[in-house]
Amino acid sequence: MAKNTSLAHKETARVEAFTDGVFAIAMTLLILEFKVPRASSEVSNGKWWLVRALAALWPSFIAYVLSFGTILIMWVNHHGLFKHAHRVDNRLLFANGFLLLVVTFVPFPTAVLAEYLDKPSASAAAIFYCATLALINAGYNLLLRAVDQNRAPDAVASPPHQAAMRRVRRAYHAGLVIYLVAAIASYFSAFAGLAICLSLWVLWAMLDYSPRHSAH
Amino acid sequence: MAKNTSLAHKETARVEAFTDGVFAIAMTLLILEFKVPRASSEVSNGKWWLVRALAALWPSFIAYVLSFGTILIMWVNHHGLFKHAHRVDNRLLFANGFLLLVVTFVPFPTAVLAEYLDKPSASAAAIFYCATLALINAGYNLLLRAVDQNRAPDAVASPPHQAAMRRVRRAYHAGLVIYLVAAIASYFSAFAGLAICLSLWVLWAMLDYSPRHSAH
Amino acid sequence: MAKNTSLAHKETARVEAFTDGVFAIAMTLLILEFKVPRASSEVSNGKWWLVRALAALWPSFIAYVLSFGTILIMWVNHHGLFKHAHRVDNRLLFANGFLLLVVTFVPFPTAVLAEYLDKPSASAAAIFYCATLALINAGYNLLLRAVDQNRAPDAVASPPHQAAMRRVRRAYHAGLVIYLVAAIASYFSAFAGLAICLSLWVLWAMLDYSPRHSAH
Amino acid sequence: MAKNTSLAHKETARVEAFTDGVFAIAMTLLILEFKVPRASSEVSNGKWWLVRALAALWPSFIAYVLSFGTILIMWVNHHGLFKHAHRVDNRLLFANGFLLLVVTFVPFPTAVLAEYLDKPSASAAAIFYCATLALINAGYNLLLRAVDQNRAPDAVASPPHQAAMRRVRRAYHAGLVIYLVAAIASYFSAFAGLAICLSLWVLWAMLDYSPRHSAH
Repeated sequence: MAKNTSLAHKETARVEAFTDGVFAIAMTLLILEFKVPRASSEVSNGKWWLVRALAALWPSFIAYVLSFGTILIMWVNHHGLFKHAHRVDNRLLFANGFLLLVVTFVPFPTAVLAEYLDKPSASAAAIFYCATLALINAGYNLLLRAVDQNRAPDAVASPPHQAAMRRVRRAYHAGLVIYLVAAIASYFSAFAGLAICLSLWVLWAMLDYSPRHSAH
Repeated sequence: MAKNTSLAHKETARVEAFTDGVFAIAMTLLILEFKVPRASSEVSNGKWWLVRALAALWPSFIAYVLSFGTILIMWVNHHGLFKHAHRVDNRLLFANGFLLLVVTFVPFPTAVLAEYLDKPSASAAAIFYCATLALINAGYNLLLRAVDQNRAPDAVASPPHQAAMRRVRRAYHAGLVIYLVAAIASYFSAFAGLAICLSLWVLWAMLDYSPRHSAH
Repeated sequence: MAKNTSLAHKETARVEAFTDGVFAIAMTLLILEFKVPRASSEVSNGKWWLVRALAALWPSFIAYVLSFGTILIMWVNHHGLFKHAHRVDNRLLFANGFLLLVVTFVPFPTAVLAEYLDKPSASAAAIFYCATLALINAGYNLLLRAVDQNRAPDAVASPPHQAAMRRVRRAYHAGLVIYLVAAIASYFSAFAGLAICLSLWVLWAMLDYSPRHSAH
Repeated sequence: MAKNTSLAHKETARVEAFTDGVFAIAMTLLILEFKVPRASSEVSNGKWWLVRALAALWPSFIAYVLSFGTILIMWVNHHGLFKHAHRVDNRLLFANGFLLLVVTFVPFPTAVLAEYLDKPSASAAAIFYCATLALINAGYNLLLRAVDQNRAPDAVASPPHQAAMRRVRRAYHAGLVIYLVAAIASYFSAFAGLAICLSLWVLWAMLDYSPRHSAH
């Protein structure tokens, strides 16, 4: 039994605080994708060329806002899901660790998107971006299963808890499918794919983790 | 009602800790705008060229101190404002999220300012910088409204609380106007615009969030 | 006695929170090793060159996942070990400080590995990487000794505690030897060395710090 | 009175947690000064040129260890000093803010030192580095005064507290003088200046903030 108990019984609070830290840093590192425009030879373009140069960074702004909002809203959802966790066992730790791995990865596809959204490779960049979000969603599905299995016995038996879990599970499955659809849509239009990712904010914002409501 | 309660009832403490983390990281990332001077061909200028090269970084020093101080003082104000928050609902979470988005953005206009403050594009860089601070201020105004609406009923009814809220609201409106004035002043002189931003530290440092004083 | 007590009696909780922060930031900074592929003259290669360019980053993916997982699993182990610490004295602080120094260092050998894993210098990069992990392991051995010495008297006398400490000590010694073997193996094959580092995840994940089991 | 109380009565715990975060991030960002060696034309130098290239980074290693250790030991001292703080008023907040400003700045002189320690500009780089540490020490002196003034009345009257404060004040004054001496010594030898900075670790590690000892 050593394997099952070795890392177990850590308090969920410390895992949550650590997760919060990783989410906060991943969000803040997004700003590093912005590169200060360099003057090079355009200096002759006059005093206000910088305004045009900053405006030309619109792909960076789109990528930044989309990733920042997505990670923020995922952080809120992480908190909602973790309230159902009864104790921290190895399985929960590793599911959470996989989730952190992909969340921390987000600044890279974001930087790729910022670089290529206004170039011929926009579709490839958007597919890479949507696929990363689909992977994060897969991480949430793994975490949900881990949480599902270690809930307190009375929570498992309670109909409101079961209803909340069913609701969350349905939303997570739907999210995974929609993110994959977004990746496919990006093949035809990068903006269509990103619009689908953006629209999923509504799903995650409305998702109700509370066992207080047996239906909605 | 699912929408209003789904993310609600998070404890304010966790949101504050997360916000603290983002503010701390945004402040610390400011240092990355400093670039180590490269010797190139000036090596022939003798052993002490590095001193001159470091002194030539004065725009970086100004931008660093201004942004660091501004974020720090905003962090203190965030804490003052959040003490009035009764509970965390969706509206508060999204207002706070917008604020985090713009605070995290600060290292970029800071780096632009550091690069161009001693160049012909200084005005454009300063306008961009002041506009970012105005946007942060708009974020505080949104957050204030969200806090205002979810205060505990007894706090809403209490005259000292009402007086504190009125005081804060007046200061936030004034701050927004002054930051926009700073952006306009930057058109004529980058340093004038930045001086106005700096002078606002006094306003934010003196702002009294405490309901203990019914007037000042 | 001033020397022994000067920094002592800090609560272990604050040291753990600080350590958590450093581990979280070190993990998150790993993403900075990923460099956005630049188009240069390959633009003529068509719309999907970016897919091939991202696939060519496979050494970065390997280095990222290996380092992220290693730091994460070491964080879990740090928590297990610190539960045995009775109080924070100077020796524990400095052993922990050395550990933080080498954990924070990890992003650099990771970036070196990402750059050279698919080049003739792969062996040198892998030796450097394995040697860093060996140094982290040495840090854990130092920390174990510091913890061992400041345990509460009743914990020292208890057979389950002694058994747990013996188990951990054996694992740490074995880990150090295996990491050094990995460094040597990297001389012949970088991938063999890294595979050994990866296989050690199993050892750290199975290690049982709990005094509840007198044997396993 | 508005000015004195506006930001006051924040709990010291939140300021300490925020300070911990900034110290942790500043320490961790130090690793970014390490640049992955680039092969350029030396590829012809054979499979092991990378080992020599890494060894040539010795100035980076020295700068990293020196700065990491210094910030870590200053963090421990910050904790010792803050235990004397009775409440958080504006003066304490701004003294602490100034300290954070200079601690966050450390990665830049560290990177300058790493770049120029093995070049003719070594002295200039070391003077800049020592001057930064002197500035941090000045920040500690400011913080000490702020703490001194807001101690609880009974702590002020207690001889052990007074003795602890005298001890700390003497050490802080001595530290400031020694850092300035290190800056001057760097003019003649960069290594001599850095050695003096290193030797001060002993002073900070031995400094006893505890009021339990009336003398030492």
